[in-house]
Amino acid sequence: MQRLPDTHRPTDDRHCEWRAIEGCLTVNGSPLGELLQQRGSPCYVYSRERIDARIAEVRAALPRATELLYPVKANPLPALLEHMVGRVDGFDIASGGELARALASGMAGERLSFAGPGKTDDELAQAAAAGALIVLESAGEAQRLARIAGALRPRVALRINPPFDLAPAAAQMAGGARKFGVDSEQAPQALGEIGRLPLAFEGFHCYPGSQCLDAAAIIETQRKTLDLAAGLAAFAPAPTRLLNLGGGLGVPCFAGEVPLDLARLGRAMHELADQAGARLPGARLTLELGRFLVAEAGLYVCRVIERKSSRGKTFLIVDGGLHHHWHATGALEGRRHLHFPIAALCGRDARPAAGELERVTVAGPLCAPHDVFAQDIELARAEPGDLIVVFQSGAYGATASPAGFLGRAPAGEVLL
Amino acid sequence: MQRLPDTHRPTDDRHCEWRAIEGCLTVNGSPLGELLQQRGSPCYVYSRERIDARIAEVRAALPRATELLYPVKANPLPALLEHMVGRVDGFDIASGGELARALASGMAGERLSFAGPGKTDDELAQAAAAGALIVLESAGEAQRLARIAGALRPRVALRINPPFDLAPAAAQMAGGARKFGVDSEQAPQALGEIGRLPLAFEGFHCYPGSQCLDAAAIIETQRKTLDLAAGLAAFAPAPTRLLNLGGGLGVPCFAGEVPLDLARLGRAMHELADQAGARLPGARLTLELGRFLVAEAGLYVCRVIERKSSRGKTFLIVDGGLHHHWHATGALEGRRHLHFPIAALCGRDARPAAGELERVTVAGPLCAPHDVFAQDIELARAEPGDLIVVFQSGAYGATASPAGFLGRAPAGEVLL
Repeated sequence: MQRLPDTHRPTDDRHCEWRAIEGCLTVNGSPLGELLQQRGSPCYVYSRERIDARIAEVRAALPRATELLYPVKANPLPALLEHMVGRVDGFDIASGGELARALASGMAGERLSFAGPGKTDDELAQAAAAGALIVLESAGEAQRLARIAGALRPRVALRINPPFDLAPAAAQMAGGARKFGVDSEQAPQALGEIGRLPLAFEGFHCYPGSQCLDAAAIIETQRKTLDLAAGLAAFAPAPTRLLNLGGGLGVPCFAGEVPLDLARLGRAMHELADQAGARLPGARLTLELGRFLVAEAGLYVCRVIERKSSRGKTFLIVDGGLHHHWHATGALEGRRHLHFPIAALCGRDARPAAGELERVTVAGPLCAPHDVFAQDIELARAEPGDLIVVFQSGAYGATASPAGFLGRAPAGEVLL
Repeated sequence: MQRLPDTHRPTDDRHCEWRAIEGCLTVNGSPLGELLQQRGSPCYVYSRERIDARIAEVRAALPRATELLYPVKANPLPALLEHMVGRVDGFDIASGGELARALASGMAGERLSFAGPGKTDDELAQAAAAGALIVLESAGEAQRLARIAGALRPRVALRINPPFDLAPAAAQMAGGARKFGVDSEQAPQALGEIGRLPLAFEGFHCYPGSQCLDAAAIIETQRKTLDLAAGLAAFAPAPTRLLNLGGGLGVPCFAGEVPLDLARLGRAMHELADQAGARLPGARLTLELGRFLVAEAGLYVCRVIERKSSRGKTFLIVDGGLHHHWHATGALEGRRHLHFPIAALCGRDARPAAGELERVTVAGPLCAPHDVFAQDIELARAEPGDLIVVFQSGAYGATASPAGFLGRAPAGEVLL
């Protein structure tokens, strides 16, 4: 296995290395250069093998009974959803559109969990008809659901907005005043209302934050979440059969970031499962893992159109940009000078160039100054026609980007 | 005419007022409430009348010979492009996709100007075949175009990266090292190369910045651009028949912003036109106006799904969000607590509510904490079913947003 020459990888690059055979970067045996010749550029390439390896790693680390939900929003490619059926225990969905995609993939309606504020009446009706678990975000939503679909006695969980957050997470989803869930101090009252409605209460949902690399912080919020749920269970109209702990397990994307210590999290979750067994007997623990399962299984590959110099700086203008892969341009987090791990593959056989490094800015073709994948980084020298690979690109890529901007074609997507 | 009750408008709200008849907000005679009943929510609503009024205002202020190009990227809705044909002098396009849309709208190929770094070989060939003016971003692109389409002797302009920027603009597009254009100090050499190639040189293009409300700053960069072009004309292989000054004319979006002083800019451009007549005889002056022509002619309208309270704050959860109107959620500029002008229209006839104000956060339905249109603002009290209107929404809306995110339906779009 050949190490990629890029010097700007996250600290531990074990997840950034892709199998290299005879110097060619390959995905499940297909050399990337050939693949791009066939598929056209730019293209997202996802590896079933890598997804499976990650799921196996997670299953091995976590208590056996942990339920794994895959959030469709992370990557809703139909082939990828079909691949996930049977490999995860269910899907988290966030809209009527995701419900339709999930059912089309072959996932059973009973294995779907529908969270999100602002569900419409139609969405609630469809989810109830499909037998999905509906994660209620407010007492008002409980009343609306009962009015619309009470005859079906829909399965529900209550999402709690806890008094704590997941501080090291890139995106805070809980604590303070939130659009998500019911404030924990209001939860007893909401549980009372749910009990008076024709709804089948199953348990609790709590999602403190997203994209966190700090296992200790995740463990801490999981423990607090169990405490909270165990306290609220006394007010619930039925035994608590479910505690959805959310997700938050991040992947390293930027230089200096250290991968999450999954082994440590797994050990703590074994303890947590023991405690849950005593405090919430019969309740299953659920995790929602999107980015953690698929981000590192995906590459985004684009082609250099032109090299140009401007006032002492070298620019590689590529045929992909923020319209395909918005997160990798740093727009979301305002991290303008950070960048995803990136490499140049050169020549007809798209080898990772081993020689000369140069300082370059990799920019997309849009008439937007922030359409930049990496600014002033060291990269193997690349010429027009050579490939640029952005790693950690399997989640929140194509569908999380303004694909229609500037009338450009969408990126290809292939699961190998 | 009734003033909207929202207290968070830009300082001068003349562009935020829409015609109100008997208390109903209407667009070209159609009450918004009825329109949304027919069209469904959320929906972008654009007014031909307002676009025409703005074009007339611009034509009246600027020298008569100023060429107005509309950049398709600002709003590529087919009906809107068709409306623009005959009202502006041409379109600025930025991709092969925009070329196709422009031609489909009925705009003549000769009236198109194609700028942007990273044009592909196919795009260059298509643009040359259509007779478009191709704005070259580098000497390398000139060589590529000549190789691909030299037999057609394509019409070209040279984009200059000047040594100056447009400092008060929200987006800097020039000055320093840039992916855009040829550094001014390299331009004589690039002009020499263009002269040796089978290309029909027409003039210069310079785009210092975007979304600027400071007329004096725009005037200053226009003067500097004329100086630069007049100096470079001596190196050009043919007489300069075109000086594209870019655009940059902004619209007020956030509280405290003052509309651009168009009259002042117009007076200065009359002087500039006189100077250009002497220094670049026979050259036409061109402006690219996208946001300035259409932003204030558009509304984004969504519906309140739920009111909820969390730890002392009131949230209005609406059925639209950042997947439809990313810029209005402040994501691009990192302006998390600023917001576009916004109003609540209440009741069956969607009247601007005149009474009670309350402090609310208006948030979309996505499982993303930054999916927020306005945070902690004063707004007329709105109930589920009432409409929320976001003004200044005619540009960089639907196509500049991650429409596929979370599998939600796209917003409707209607030009009245």
